[in-house]
Order: sequence, then C-alpha cells, then structure tokens
Amino acid sequence: MTAQPASDPIEDGLTEELHAIVGQRLTTAPAAREQHGRDESYHAPQPPDVVVFAASTEEVSAIVKVCARRRVPVIPFGTGTSLEGHVAALRGGVCIDLTQMNEVLAVNVEDMDCTVQAGVTRKQLGEHLRDTGLFFAVDPGADASIGGMAATRASGTNAVRYGTMRETVLALTVVLADGRIIRTSRRARKSSAGYDLTRLFVGSEGTLGVITEVTLRLHGVPEAISVAVSAFPDLAAAVNATITTIQAGVPVARIEILDDKQMEAINKYSNLDYPQAPTLFFEFHGSEAGVVEQVETVKAVASDFGGSDFQWATGAEDRARLWQARHDAFYAAMALRPGSKGYATDVCVPISRLAECIVETRKDIEDSKILAPIVGHVGDGNFHLVMVLDPDDADEMARAKALNERLVMRGLAMDGTCTGEHGVGHGKIDFLVAEHGEAVSVMRTIKTALDPLGIMNPGKIVRV
Amino acid sequence: MTAQPASDPIEDGLTEELHAIVGQRLTTAPAAREQHGRDESYHAPQPPDVVVFAASTEEVSAIVKVCARRRVPVIPFGTGTSLEGHVAALRGGVCIDLTQMNEVLAVNVEDMDCTVQAGVTRKQLGEHLRDTGLFFAVDPGADASIGGMAATRASGTNAVRYGTMRETVLALTVVLADGRIIRTSRRARKSSAGYDLTRLFVGSEGTLGVITEVTLRLHGVPEAISVAVSAFPDLAAAVNATITTIQAGVPVARIEILDDKQMEAINKYSNLDYPQAPTLFFEFHGSEAGVVEQVETVKAVASDFGGSDFQWATGAEDRARLWQARHDAFYAAMALRPGSKGYATDVCVPISRLAECIVETRKDIEDSKILAPIVGHVGDGNFHLVMVLDPDDADEMARAKALNERLVMRGLAMDGTCTGEHGVGHGKIDFLVAEHGEAVSVMRTIKTALDPLGIMNPGKIVRV
Repeated sequence: MTAQPASDPIEDGLTEELHAIVGQRLTTAPAAREQHGRDESYHAPQPPDVVVFAASTEEVSAIVKVCARRRVPVIPFGTGTSLEGHVAALRGGVCIDLTQMNEVLAVNVEDMDCTVQAGVTRKQLGEHLRDTGLFFAVDPGADASIGGMAATRASGTNAVRYGTMRETVLALTVVLADGRIIRTSRRARKSSAGYDLTRLFVGSEGTLGVITEVTLRLHGVPEAISVAVSAFPDLAAAVNATITTIQAGVPVARIEILDDKQMEAINKYSNLDYPQAPTLFFEFHGSEAGVVEQVETVKAVASDFGGSDFQWATGAEDRARLWQARHDAFYAAMALRPGSKGYATDVCVPISRLAECIVETRKDIEDSKILAPIVGHVGDGNFHLVMVLDPDDADEMARAKALNERLVMRGLAMDGTCTGEHGVGHGKIDFLVAEHGEAVSVMRTIKTALDPLGIMNPGKIVRV
Repeated sequence: MTAQPASDPIEDGLTEELHAIVGQRLTTAPAAREQHGRDESYHAPQPPDVVVFAASTEEVSAIVKVCARRRVPVIPFGTGTSLEGHVAALRGGVCIDLTQMNEVLAVNVEDMDCTVQAGVTRKQLGEHLRDTGLFFAVDPGADASIGGMAATRASGTNAVRYGTMRETVLALTVVLADGRIIRTSRRARKSSAGYDLTRLFVGSEGTLGVITEVTLRLHGVPEAISVAVSAFPDLAAAVNATITTIQAGVPVARIEILDDKQMEAINKYSNLDYPQAPTLFFEFHGSEAGVVEQVETVKAVASDFGGSDFQWATGAEDRARLWQARHDAFYAAMALRPGSKGYATDVCVPISRLAECIVETRKDIEDSKILAPIVGHVGDGNFHLVMVLDPDDADEMARAKALNERLVMRGLAMDGTCTGEHGVGHGKIDFLVAEHGEAVSVMRTIKTALDPLGIMNPGKIVRV
C-alpha cells in the first residue's frame, strides 16, 4: 500500500516526464531539494528527489498522474513555514512547489469572499484587499501561503472572533491522488448538499490531495480598531482576566498572552520596552461607540485581576508594529539563543481548564531547565511553549520531548487537543491515537480510500 | 454492495435478536412503522420492518452489529421532521428511534458548551438552559432533535450571526456501520489534529453512522434584544435592504423575508395582523447601546428602500409569538389549503445574486400557477418556496417538480447550492451531481469505505 518506487526515480525517466509538463520549472539541485524538505521546526530535513514549480491546477493534475502511475510520493509545498515536518519527503518523491500559483483570481466585494491560487501568501492577500474595505482574518505567525494554511487548518490571533481556516474556507479546488480535479463546494454561505468535503480537505496536510485554489470568506474592516497592552502580576491572573472577558461576551478581536520570558524576547527582537511581566495584548473591533464600550468592560476586568493600566498603541503604525512583534514571537524566542532550533508545543484546552494547564506547565518548564517562553491565543484556550533548543544536545532534546509529552497528556486529560493550529505532520503522529482512539482508524480508512497507492505526502497524520 | 436481506428479516429471527438488546422497546405494528417511515414532506412514506427505541449508545452499537451481520438496513430516526424523505426505509430494515435518548448530559457554563443525547429536541435544550445565561442558537422551523439537526446540517433564523450546525457542533459520538463507537473530537474550541471527522458526520444524514451524542457550542444570552418588522413595496426592495444591511457589517442576529402570500398565511395561522406585503423580520442582539446603534443603522437602510416604519415586538412574549409565527411558516402555508402536502425548495446563493434569484423565481411561480409562498433566511442568501400541493394531482406535482428544478438550476448557475439547510435525503439525490460533478465520486468513495455493506440509511445522499 505504501509508495515504493521500484528504482531511483531520477534514473528512471521521471524527470523527463515532468519536464514535458513544466518545462524548465524543475530542479534536482541539492540546495533546492534540501530547502524544500525542511520547515521552521526542529525536525531534520528530508529532501525530495525532485522539485517542480507548478503554474496551474492542470499542471498539478498532470504531475500527480505521472506520480500515481510510477507510485512516487507527492509532497505539496507552500512557504515551508510549517512546524511539524509537514513538508519532509520521508520517502523521497516529487515536491510540488506552488509558489508560482500566486494569483488572486477573484474578489467578490458584495459577497465578502475571494478566490486565490494556493501559493498566494496571507500578506500578499492583505495588500491586494487594501482598498476593498474587506480583510482576511486568519493570521498565523509566518507569512504562510493560503494553500498551506488551508492544508494545516491554521489559525492565529483573530480566531477568537473570526474563526480559523475551518470557518473561513468556503470552497477548494483539489487535485486528487489519481490526478482528477474537484471543486469541493459552491460559494453559497451555507449548504447541506452532501458530505462536507471542504472541511475534510481543510487540515488534511496534503495527504488526501493537493489544494490548488481556495475560496475564502472575508470580513468588513471595522469602523474603529483599538489596541491595548496590560501587564499582570502573574500568569494565572492574566489567564483568568481572559476567561472573564470571554465569558462576559465581549466580542474581543484578539486577546493574546505572553509570559515574562516571551516579553523579554520580543522587547529585544522588536525593540520594544514593555515591562517583563505576564502580559495581555488586546484588539477591539467595532463601531466607535462599540469599541469604547468593549474597552471599558475589559479595562474593569483587567483591573479586577491586578492588570496594569492599558498602554495604548493608537496609530495604525504603532498597531502594526505591536502585532508584527507578536507574530515574530517564535523568531524572537529563537534569537534569545543564536543557532538554536525551535520546538513549539500547541495544546488547546477548554477555557475553564486553561489557567490550571498553563500554571502547571510553567512549573514543568522550570523543572525541565528548558528555555521555553509561553505565548498564546488564550481566548481560544490555545497556547504555545516555544522551546529554544540546541538540536545537537541529545539530552536537551530528550527533555524537550518529555516536556511536550507531559503537556499533551495534561491537555488531553482536560478534554483538549494536542494541536490547536499547527497540525500533525509526522511530529505528532503518535499523539493522534492518544487523542482520538478508534477514530484514528476512521481517518486511516478515509486515507486508504482516497489515496489507495499511498503516494500523497506519506507518513503524515496517519500511518497506513 | 447494497443491503439485500436474504429473506424477510422479521421471519428470520431478527426481532428476537433485537428483543434481546432492547427488551420490549421494539415494535412491528403497522401504524408505528408507517409513522417512522414518513417525514413532513410530500415524499411517500416507506415504512421500516421494525422500529426499536434505543436507550444508550451501547444499545445502538449492539443493534447496528446485528444489522451488519444480517446486512439489514439501519435508519436513524429523531422527530421525523425532515423534508427530503431522509427517514424513508427505501429498502426496509431497522429504524432506530432515538427519542428515548433525551438526556442533557452536561452543561459547561464556563466553556459555553453542552453535551446532549441525540434525542434531545431544540426546545427541550432551550428550556434546560433557561437559567444559565446561555442559549443554543440553531433553530429550524420544527422542534427537531439535536441528533437529526446534526445529521442534516440544519440551520435556521440565527445562522446569519451564529452559524449553522456546521459551526455549532464541537464533537459527536457516532456508532459506525460495524457497530464500533467513536468520539470525533475533543471539547477544545479549535483543533488541527487530523481529519475533521466532526464536520464529515455533520450532514451525513445517517449514511455513515448513527449520531448518538452531540457536544454543542452555546452563546451568551445578549444583554439586550430588539425585534422589528418592516413592510416593503416589493420583494426586490426587501432583498436589497437585506444585502445593504449585511454589507454594512451590522451584526444582525436574524433577518428573515416573507412575501405577501406568506404574510397572509401566517396572519391567518398565527392570528397576527401585519400588512400583506413583502416583509422583513429583524432581531438585534447586543449591549443596550449596541442594539440601539444597530437599529438606527438598519432603520435608515430600510427607509432608503421604501420600507415602512419599524413595528416593534418589545415584550418577551410578543417576541416569542412573532418568532413562533415565523417558525410555523411551513405549517401556515399548508393551512392555506387543507389536506395539502408541502414541498419546500431550499436554494442558497451568494447574496449578490439573491435579489435576481428571488425576483425571477417569483415570475416562475406565477407562470406555474402553483401556490408557493416565499420565506427565507435572506441574510445567508437562503430562501424557500413552500409549495402547497395536492399530492394526488399528478399534473400539479409535475409542475412543482419542474418549478423546483428550474430554481435549482438557476441557483447552481449563480454558484449557489440546491440545499442550504434541508439536506439531500432521496429527494435531491439527482441534483447533487449537477452541483458537485466529480466531487460526488469522492463522496461515494467515502460512503463505500465507511459503510462497505451499504446498510446505513441506503439510498440517501449518494447512490452506490
């Protein structure tokens, strides 16, 4: 069932067949292969045999057909910013780089949606939408591709109000494992027309097909936006202020936590001077009056939990600088220790358990002697340790793995998930069974049915 | 591949085996079988061979195991309020009535979620939540079961703000086609942990498994609620007022259209005295000040399109009466012609095409000489004709089918869907190919993989 090319695919005429499809947009150069087999995580790179740069859905289809006939693995590649080894070519094969498919195909202002090719990045789309009065709300730290974000079911700082890629993707164009092309849905806002293939492919990490086009729900740029920063005496106080805010029904757009260590990291990396204390970053969206009302409520909540007075980032530039600093949290943590590799945890728990989960984990971090700033989308119950590691230090890596495992098991015991937004890749494949039990066998059945040759990004999400 | 019992299952010892599981909670009485093979639509009833009343997930599992061994069809049954023949036992078999599984298992106020057995109805859950400060937002016309609502991916009047069952279901307990029991997800608000099985089973209409428990997202009861009614000079004006309201970013909780015919029907049925003109029903949720702001904006929009001054339903009782009347629209339409059967269409289009779609369809209704009030969730682009028919009049039925087909093809040409919320059942099975093309083959592959014996509600959604 697993993809096992009979011989070295390069020797075997594979590249000639691919050249016939993509012309010169193909490389077997070691540096390019190496770059396409690595992401931003601690996982060791695993280069593919060939990298092809696809220019259209039809080309992707033709490439996949060649790979299916030859039983060669296919690994889709966007920006390589995933965190669980998603793009590692564990069994070699053909990496389909989608970055040249970077056209915004349509923006429907009246319907508040757009359709883009998979290689469009989130910042590129943001620029494109600048004068439309609309914005795309999903914002992982990296400037990821929209196709990659759909494939990993990404989210970010706005999810507490605007949802994740699960709620944001309206329809997908997908190349299946045999090269057939489907569109998963129409542009209607809701539908009961059969199985929800859109949601099945969102989060499938290239294991069921290659996403080549994405139709996205957009949101209206709010009339007023306000950003505030508040420091708290300890982590529990900051988390409890968050919980109270959510439960009060404040439609907060962003509510992010950073611990003292993470504040130190971003102050240094982004040249800011916030107190080195557990801190919440807030953003409020609404009408002028609505934002004032939200701010008053949250100020009172923060104060009840010992939060400092709000520091404001009022101008558009200050705001952008603050959120860029937040998005750079991962890189800022890495910069605390030059030459290090990042290992980000991603547990998400019901919000009622969040304070307990973070406080206990903080104790574990201290016991483990690992440098691990905490940052997170606390409004969703999702937080990350960014473990800053020397990948050549086997003992430290072992302690990091143990810390993550302990955190995941704590999260699962709280009815949470091992991954809120980073996905499974091959790094979390063993946790999936702990999380889902028998349901993993249903995932395996689906994988086998839709990819009977096992060529689609093999070794990710489920073992077959 | 299809379920084909070797002989009459009743003669063959099936009922004895089922008795051993459910004791006396089993019937083969013709009246009960007839009642369990019919829904509220024009579709002819198709009685199952046996009806069993399950009391637990484990019982459902045991029942399905018996049916799998004997290759007897399994049809889950909630309240029988579906509209596309979903519960018709097209090939006989065992109807599993879930109404005795009607316990609210947990309400987590802090996490704003709850877990219920599949047989709990939406009104029962509403009552249960009364003093928690939370509410369950999905409200189809009927007092449907939560399991049935999940299985049909139902929505209702609140979807424009709070989403459909797609956004509302956090996790499911499902009995698979071989009797295994899975839970599809955890209670975390978001997750990237593997394929989205929750969304796959939401809308699967019993064809992949039996939903026995549902974990639901709840919402905080807003501080202020306001309801208004406004009459418009014509349908296009009412629709355009809706589109402008949505595009202005007003977070309207409900925005419903009723044409003059439907207003006549509900005035009579619910003893109201609104003008018999195209009308919008609005509901606004928010803080006191926020609701005032929303109302002012929408009043101005309505006035721009020639809408009458708002009539208010201010007290909780008046509000409840108004929305009950709206929910009874289907029954009110039926009452216009005693002895008739209802045939509800369910097209949903991108909102930019909605006015055109409704206006052209209204012309078709006139040409077809069919009594067909229009009612709809216009904020989502979803509207219904409630065709009021004499099922014994073959000519009228033929004209009704032609009218629906013309409407569906118009909706599809506008990048819409044949069903926004009613589902496919067997009534829309042929439209699915027109809507999804090759993607239907992916649905068929999934169906065959998860239900290899073809016993789960056969003949619905996809033909195998």
